[in-house]
Amino acid sequence: MKTTMTSLTLPLADDLHVHLRQGDVLRTVVPLLRAGGAGRVLVMPNTTPPVTSAGQAVAYRAELRAVAPDVDFLMTLYFTPALTPDEVRRAAAAGVVGIKVYPHGVTTNSASGVEDLLAFGPVLAAMEAADLVLELHGELPAHAGSDVCVLDAEERFLPTLRSLHDRYPRLRIVLEHVTTARAVDAVKSLGATVAATITAHHLDLMIDDWAGKNHNFCKPVAKYPSDRAALRAVVGEGHPRFFLGSDSAPHPRTAKECASACAGVFTSPLLLAYLADTFEGLGALDRLPAFASEFGCRFYRLPPARETIRLVREPQVVPPAYGGVVPYRAGATLNWRIAAA
Amino acid sequence: MKTTMTSLTLPLADDLHVHLRQGDVLRTVVPLLRAGGAGRVLVMPNTTPPVTSAGQAVAYRAELRAVAPDVDFLMTLYFTPALTPDEVRRAAAAGVVGIKVYPHGVTTNSASGVEDLLAFGPVLAAMEAADLVLELHGELPAHAGSDVCVLDAEERFLPTLRSLHDRYPRLRIVLEHVTTARAVDAVKSLGATVAATITAHHLDLMIDDWAGKNHNFCKPVAKYPSDRAALRAVVGEGHPRFFLGSDSAPHPRTAKECASACAGVFTSPLLLAYLADTFEGLGALDRLPAFASEFGCRFYRLPPARETIRLVREPQVVPPAYGGVVPYRAGATLNWRIAAA
Repeated sequence: MKTTMTSLTLPLADDLHVHLRQGDVLRTVVPLLRAGGAGRVLVMPNTTPPVTSAGQAVAYRAELRAVAPDVDFLMTLYFTPALTPDEVRRAAAAGVVGIKVYPHGVTTNSASGVEDLLAFGPVLAAMEAADLVLELHGELPAHAGSDVCVLDAEERFLPTLRSLHDRYPRLRIVLEHVTTARAVDAVKSLGATVAATITAHHLDLMIDDWAGKNHNFCKPVAKYPSDRAALRAVVGEGHPRFFLGSDSAPHPRTAKECASACAGVFTSPLLLAYLADTFEGLGALDRLPAFASEFGCRFYRLPPARETIRLVREPQVVPPAYGGVVPYRAGATLNWRIAAA
Repeated sequence: MKTTMTSLTLPLADDLHVHLRQGDVLRTVVPLLRAGGAGRVLVMPNTTPPVTSAGQAVAYRAELRAVAPDVDFLMTLYFTPALTPDEVRRAAAAGVVGIKVYPHGVTTNSASGVEDLLAFGPVLAAMEAADLVLELHGELPAHAGSDVCVLDAEERFLPTLRSLHDRYPRLRIVLEHVTTARAVDAVKSLGATVAATITAHHLDLMIDDWAGKNHNFCKPVAKYPSDRAALRAVVGEGHPRFFLGSDSAPHPRTAKECASACAGVFTSPLLLAYLADTFEGLGALDRLPAFASEFGCRFYRLPPARETIRLVREPQVVPPAYGGVVPYRAGATLNWRIAAA
C-alpha cells in the first residue's frame, strides 16, 4: 500500500543562487523570497553596473535588507578582469561569501565577464586563502567561428572546472545550475570542495518545454530527457554536493513575450511548492529537506536555519504574475503549499 | 584574385514546400510568392480543416489561383487515417502531385496526422501506382513517457524512412525540411526515389539562433552547428536529390511575440535573396540555380520553368512585416535582390 505524505516540516530553505535585480523589480521580488520558503539566499552580482567591490556588495545588501529584514542575504562579487587580491580580502572581511564568474556574454548582464579564468591566479589564490567560494556559470562562451552552442556549452566548460580544482584543490567551487548528465558526473567525480546547484525548473524541463515557450527559456537551457533524468537521479539519491540554487531570474513580461526573450525563469515566490511537487513525483519527498536546507548550508559553512516551515499537500494555483513578472508554471495547479505560520 | 559575381540569372524557382494558409493570411502571402522568386510551389495541406480530398484540393487551388494567377500551385493531400486508395486515384486524376504526412502532433495543425504509416499499405500502394509523391514531415512524435525530444525526433524517424523505401522502392518520397547530418546521410544512402527538401533558414540557423528568438523558431528546430554544416555541404556539392522547399510558414506577429510562439519562419517574399546571400557565403552561388530551379523540378517530373529571373548584387533591407507577418531576418540587409523585370 502506498501512503501519501500530506505534510512536511523542514528548515527554512537556503536558495544559493538568486537574481534580485534593482529598482522596481527588486521591490517586487525580494518580499516574495520568504513566501517561497527561503530564509537565506545567495545574491547574484549581475546588476547594472555589476557588484564588483566590497563596498558595492555592502550597499546592495543594505538595500535588500531594508526591503526584507527577515531574509539573510549572502553576497557575491562579479569576477571581472579588474578584480584584485586586495578586493578579495576586503570582500571577505565585509562578509561577502563568494565570487561569481560569468564567462563573457553567456547570459543576462554578462558583458563584464572574464574569458580565461586560469589567467587570474593571484585572485584565485586570494580567494582560497580567504575561504571565499567560487561560483561558476559553467558554460563555454561561443566565439565567432567557434562551434559551441547552447547544447554543449556546459559540457565543454567541464575541463575548465577540472583544471581549476586541480590547481586550487582547497578552493570551494560551485558549478551553478547544472543541466547535463556530464556535468553531474564531473562534479561527482571531483573532490569534496566541488559542488553544484540545481534549479527547481531544470528538474522539470527539457528542451521541448522551452522551444518557443519563452517563460521556460533560461540559460543554461534545459536539455535532453536523459540530462533531466540525471539531475533527478542525483537529487533522488541525496548526494550531499548537489543542492538548491534556484537561479530565479525575474524579467518583466514584456521582456519575455516578445521577439527576443530574455533568459530566466522566475521561481522565488513558490520555490518550495514547486520542489515539493517535483520531489513527490520522483518518490523522493524525503530528500527535499536536505536538498533545500542542509547540503548547501553545510557546503557554505553556514549555521543551520533556526526556523522551520511546514509544507502541506493542498492545491494552489500559480498566479498569472507578480507585479508584471510571470512566475514559472503560471496558471498551473501545484499540489503543495506552505502552511500559514 | 577573387572575382565577385554581381548578377545571376536562373529559371523561376520551384519552392516545393510552402504554407499558404487561408483567409487574410492567404491574401497577404500568396501575392508575395512570385516577388520572392518562386513560379511554382508545392502547397501544404495543413489548413483548417485539412485538405483531405481531391475535391478540397481542387477548390483550394482555385482559391490560390484567383489571388496569384501567375503562380503554378502544386497541390497535396493531408495523409489521415481516413485516406482511401480511391481518393488517392481521384487526387491523381485531379492533378494533385503528392500526399503529405504529418506525424500526429508534431507541428502546426497536425492533430489529424497518422501514427503508424506502414499500417496504410493499400494507400501507399495506390500512391506508388498513381505516381504520387509521399512528402514526409520526418519527426518521430513524442508520446507521454517517451524520451523523444525536438533534438532527436528527426534522427529517430529515419528508420521509418528506410522501411518505407524498402517496402515501396518505386514510391517517390521526399523527406521534408531536413535539419540533421544524420538525415542528410540517410537520404544520400537511399535510392533515386528518395529526396529531401532544405529550407533557406535551416542553411543559416542553429539552435542558438532560435533559443528565445521566436521569429527563428520552427519545427523541425534548427540543430547543432555540425548539422548546419552538413546541410551546407550537401547543397555546396550540388547533390541532385536535395532541393528547395522553403517551409515558409506565416504566423501573425501576435502568434510569435507571445508566451508560446507558433513554429514557423516566413521566407516567401525574399526567398531567392536569402538563398543568394547564403550560397554566396558558402562560395557556392553557382549551385543555386540547380538547387532552386532544377533538382526539385526533375524529381517531381515537372517541365522546366519557362521564365527566368535575374538576381543582382544590390543591398536591400528586409521589411519589418508584411501585413502583420514578420519575415525572416526582418531589418537585416541582404546583399542580393531580384532585379525588376
